[in-house]
Amino acid sequence: MKIGIIGSGSMGQALGKFFALAGHDILLGSRTPQRVNEWIATEGLTARSGSYAEATQFGDLVLLVTRWAETPAAIQAAGSLAGKILVDCSNPSGADGFYHVGDGRMISGAEEIAQWASGAKVVLAFNSIYGSMLLAGTQFGDDNPSAFYCGDDENAKAVVAQLLQAAGLDPVDAGALKNARYLEPLAGLMAHLGENMGWGGENIAYKLLRRRRD
Amino acid sequence: MKIGIIGSGSMGQALGKFFALAGHDILLGSRTPQRVNEWIATEGLTARSGSYAEATQFGDLVLLVTRWAETPAAIQAAGSLAGKILVDCSNPSGADGFYHVGDGRMISGAEEIAQWASGAKVVLAFNSIYGSMLLAGTQFGDDNPSAFYCGDDENAKAVVAQLLQAAGLDPVDAGALKNARYLEPLAGLMAHLGENMGWGGENIAYKLLRRRRD
Repeated sequence: MKIGIIGSGSMGQALGKFFALAGHDILLGSRTPQRVNEWIATEGLTARSGSYAEATQFGDLVLLVTRWAETPAAIQAAGSLAGKILVDCSNPSGADGFYHVGDGRMISGAEEIAQWASGAKVVLAFNSIYGSMLLAGTQFGDDNPSAFYCGDDENAKAVVAQLLQAAGLDPVDAGALKNARYLEPLAGLMAHLGENMGWGGENIAYKLLRRRRD
Repeated sequence: MKIGIIGSGSMGQALGKFFALAGHDILLGSRTPQRVNEWIATEGLTARSGSYAEATQFGDLVLLVTRWAETPAAIQAAGSLAGKILVDCSNPSGADGFYHVGDGRMISGAEEIAQWASGAKVVLAFNSIYGSMLLAGTQFGDDNPSAFYCGDDENAKAVVAQLLQAAGLDPVDAGALKNARYLEPLAGLMAHLGENMGWGGENIAYKLLRRRRD
């Protein structure tokens, strides 16, 4: 699959490397594509870099992996996203670093992104998954991590679910895009456990245990 | 262990039944203890009911399982909680039923409870676990659910962690009580998946996958 990535920070690079190694065609969009090209060469990846607009035009699927404060400008720079599957992998950050507490937020970041990215088929995914965990391998003994996703376009969701599954993850449908309000706060706990509680992000992931439905 | 329970709604009853069947001494505090006694008899449990104050005096450990709107009055009715281990099993509910989005909340419910319950050793636990799941059994194939907890008193946390472990759960320490801000939003997703996404609460639980730390 041709995957364009908007944002070349640590998570953008991790997703780019992860999907490049999995055999996808990657264009890693950056504000500093030359520096990203050096990183690609150092890593020995089959991938290339370009502008946000080039990443958008390139991708059958576009991953949005920007810091919240930079997201409106990044979407602006991306050009038309109409008709594109836009996978929001980001999170709005709250006051004091506590996601969704104390920031006065009334809707999810994913819903705001859908407003900004006119005509895009927005699916939230990867927002509570560490890139370093993906690169360290998706197996935890006999378990693999769950990957929650939500969105309003069923065809786009099916494409994303297939991508998650092929990546060794366990897709969990959380319904419509507005349910990003439930999914985004998961990132706060994940970051807290990884960075404050001594686990290291590469060593932890969520699993939704399920058993036979009655 | 002598466990007092403040609140006899569906979660209070589920925890009472779960811990009574596990051999603990239970006093289920209620505003309608007579009705709870009938339920105890119907269930054939070794347990008893009483007022919130009686549950508080009885318990070496007190579970708080009330609806958010009723919590201040319940704590008032409970009498002195000074020195008690108070396990907050509740969640503040937000506007539109979306926890922690759109409710203008600046701190966690658990921190507010610690302010209201003067001198209590507050530990948040069980807030994103379905009572019906506990009663249906804590095994999911070879997995068991994680139980996140946090609090400011290390001895109280150790008691709660032991209780969680003995109950067949996998305790995960999330640090200080303020980190309830990360844990309470988990309940929103759990309720959404159980009630809106067709799983049924008894069939789902979170697991935090971990692997060897480097």
